[in-house]
Parts: sequence; C-alpha cells; structure tokens
Amino acid sequence: MKRVLLEVAYEGTNYCGWQIQPNKITVEGVLNDALSKLLGQEIKVIGASRTDSGVHAMGNVAVFDTDSPIPGEKFSYALNQRLPEDIVVRGSREVSLDFHPRKCVSEKTYEYRILNATFPIPTLRNTTLFHHYPLDTSKMQQAANYLVGEHDFKSFCSIKTQTETTIRTIHAITVEKNQEIITIRVTGNGFLYNMVRIIAGTLLNVGSGLLSPESIPEILASLDRENAGPTAPAKGLTLVKINYKN
Amino acid sequence: MKRVLLEVAYEGTNYCGWQIQPNKITVEGVLNDALSKLLGQEIKVIGASRTDSGVHAMGNVAVFDTDSPIPGEKFSYALNQRLPEDIVVRGSREVSLDFHPRKCVSEKTYEYRILNATFPIPTLRNTTLFHHYPLDTSKMQQAANYLVGEHDFKSFCSIKTQTETTIRTIHAITVEKNQEIITIRVTGNGFLYNMVRIIAGTLLNVGSGLLSPESIPEILASLDRENAGPTAPAKGLTLVKINYKN
Repeated sequence: MKRVLLEVAYEGTNYCGWQIQPNKITVEGVLNDALSKLLGQEIKVIGASRTDSGVHAMGNVAVFDTDSPIPGEKFSYALNQRLPEDIVVRGSREVSLDFHPRKCVSEKTYEYRILNATFPIPTLRNTTLFHHYPLDTSKMQQAANYLVGEHDFKSFCSIKTQTETTIRTIHAITVEKNQEIITIRVTGNGFLYNMVRIIAGTLLNVGSGLLSPESIPEILASLDRENAGPTAPAKGLTLVKINYKN
Repeated sequence: MKRVLLEVAYEGTNYCGWQIQPNKITVEGVLNDALSKLLGQEIKVIGASRTDSGVHAMGNVAVFDTDSPIPGEKFSYALNQRLPEDIVVRGSREVSLDFHPRKCVSEKTYEYRILNATFPIPTLRNTTLFHHYPLDTSKMQQAANYLVGEHDFKSFCSIKTQTETTIRTIHAITVEKNQEIITIRVTGNGFLYNMVRIIAGTLLNVGSGLLSPESIPEILASLDRENAGPTAPAKGLTLVKINYKN
C-alpha cells in the first residue's frame, strides 16, 4: 500500500466546485472516476481545498491510497490521458502514509485577478473579474497591509462558516497592476469559507473609494460580516499553490 | 450617412472563423445580426482580417454604413449589450466614407503563444499551443531575424493562397519567454493565408533543433511551401492590432 499525492490544476468554469455532490459534475468526482478506471478499483481521493463552483486551481492537492505498481510520479501522465482538457494533474509523487492534505500544516497561496479596463477581454472572461471603473491599487495595498498577521477574520468569512475558531494568519498580501490586470495575491496558513473572495470584494470597495484603507482595522475588530465588502465573484479566484511544512 | 469603425475582440474557439458562411456560426455573422437588430435594418460589415476558425483577436477592425443618429463612439456600448461574452467591441468611432479596412494601408500585429511546460495549464488550453519539449528561444529569435524585411513569402503561405504577389514586408518579429509562455510577435504590412501560423510552425522546428536558424534564407529562396515548417494550430494565434496610416 502506498499514498500518492496529486497536484491538480483546473478551470472551474464547467464544474460545481471541487467537492463531490450527487448529480453534479465536480472536479473531485471526475478525478475519482479517472483514477477508478485507471486502477480498476474504486478510488476516493482526499482533497486539500474544497474550492467553490467557478473557482480555478493551479495547484490543489489530493491524495489516494493504492497497491498499484505504477510509480507515484507516473500517475500524472496516466491520468491526464483520461481527464478532460480542463483538468490537468501537473505532478504526482508518493508520500508517507500518514500525510493528510488538510490536517498537515500548510501554506496556501491564492490569486484574485481583476481586469480593470474600459471594455472586457473575451479570452479572460472566465478567469478574471471585469471592473470598469478605475481602481486605486496603492490604496488597495494600504488596506491589505492591515490584514497581514494573526487576526480573528470573523468579518471576512461567510456567515455559513462552521469552524472552532475564526482566527487565521495571513503571511502576505500584495496588490499588483500589470497593464490592465490587477492581481491580489494572498498567502496564509489557512482560509475560512469565502475569506479570499470577501477580502477581494473589500479591497475592490477600497480601490473604488467606497471604503478607506483605515477602515480595515475597525472592520476586523467588529467581528461582523456585514461590515466587510461583498463576496467577489468566484471566477476571479485561483488557488495557486499549497506548500506543506516538511 | 456615416461610416463607423469597430475594434472587435473575440475568442475564436466557438466560431468558424470571421467570415460569414451558410449554416455556420461566425464572428462576422454574429456581428451583422447584432448590428441589424440594433439598427432595425440589414447591416453587413466589411472586416479587415478574415481570421481562421479558432484564431482570436484583440483588435480586428470592421466598418459599416448607417444613417443612425447614434454617435460613432457609442456603438461599442450598444453592441456589447447584444453580443455574446466571447465577442466584445472594444472601441468604435466615425471614419471618413472612403475608409476601407482592407484597402487602406495598415500595419498588423499578430501574437502566437506557446505554453512550453511539462504539463498543460487548463485555463490556457484554448489560447496557447502546449509544447512539452524544451524550445531554444534564442535560436528561434535568430531564425526570425532572417524573415524581417521585404521578401517573397511563397514558402510561408498555404498552397491555397490566391494573390497577385506573395511579396510582403515584415517590420519586426520578436520571440520572448515569460515564465512558461513563449510569445512570437509579428508585425508587418500584410500577411498571406496561414503565413503567421507557418512562421510559428517553422520557428517551433528551429526551437526544437529540427531546423537550424541558418536554413531560413534557403527556405525563403526556395519559394516552396514544402520546405517551411508545419502550419501551427489556430488556437495559439491572436490578431493583436491593426494600425492604419493617417
């Protein structure tokens, strides 16, 4: 028996998110089917991040156990032949049997991309949020700086969130503009439900002048979801990578 | 009566190219329908470049004549409300009645994008060519330099090409690598049928080591399509912009 780790990239547009659900096409479901056909036995992967419908990934992580003689690093090639074009396994390797993609300590990086232009760009319609009005990225960065560090992010998660604690640590947030694309890049040790999309929605309000950067500490302290900005649309969000300690 | 110019961007994936054809969905056809509905009269645009099926554009150009009181620069907004998400009019303005998008002298810029990586990236699957093996971009640039200037490009066009002359002038070709994306950018005063895709296919062969950069002058001189590389797939190609003199 061995445990194999997969680094999974996908465009989320055509999927009802990562997590398997009855009668819905999900990334996890398609991955399980491809693995089960490849190995001739029912396989159920354990995923690191249950991304929402429409959210993309460059490096989500999943593991599964198998007795197959296929070497860990060959699974990517074998699986890609059986996966649709919008899901790609970009790496695979054997890991220790006690490795768990959600329980082991990790650092996750997300990017939220905004097309800030007068007109949309057709080829970016599924992977960026189009925003017509000018955004002040230096104010967005100022606001973002208040979120770095350990905080109670109760104001920045869905009211549907069910966790023991809403305290999380953000290691870095950068707001960069490259031509018409603004990228908000957030790295941290864990994220609450909708947290990156609410951060993006709040920074959009700061960039538009609806909120001042200085209001962020108050919003954090209020512990009230109502005070943060809206949940930005899923299509702008990409889970870029997950780094595990050790 | 006035003539209105449209700058048209589209993802070509879901279209049988620009040019209207019976029983096929084309960019020109969709644009004509949207304009005809907007103006309540049958409109047939004249396009600058009849891009192939699967080829994208950021700035193709089309014109039409109308008596409508809508100011030229407002057509983009009015049309975008009636166009599908994969076609966007990124600018519109009134031009003189003798302006013709194919007959007036112009400079066109195309980009051919290659994802040169171990694994594909799902979100780039329709807009880049995936190429697994390493490519030597400095050799590709060396080869490209031989194509700059006025040449008979008979070796670099489809044998189906029907024109008076196959002499064209390329103003610049650059081959740039940014992370895993190689962009071949070609600017010139006009292009033969499949010319940019054949240039891209030939540079791919140079980058892979199948052709030497020094073989390009011989390929040009041979005036024989058989000696150039293959026609690279449509999906990597984007018509970036068209600049008109005056």
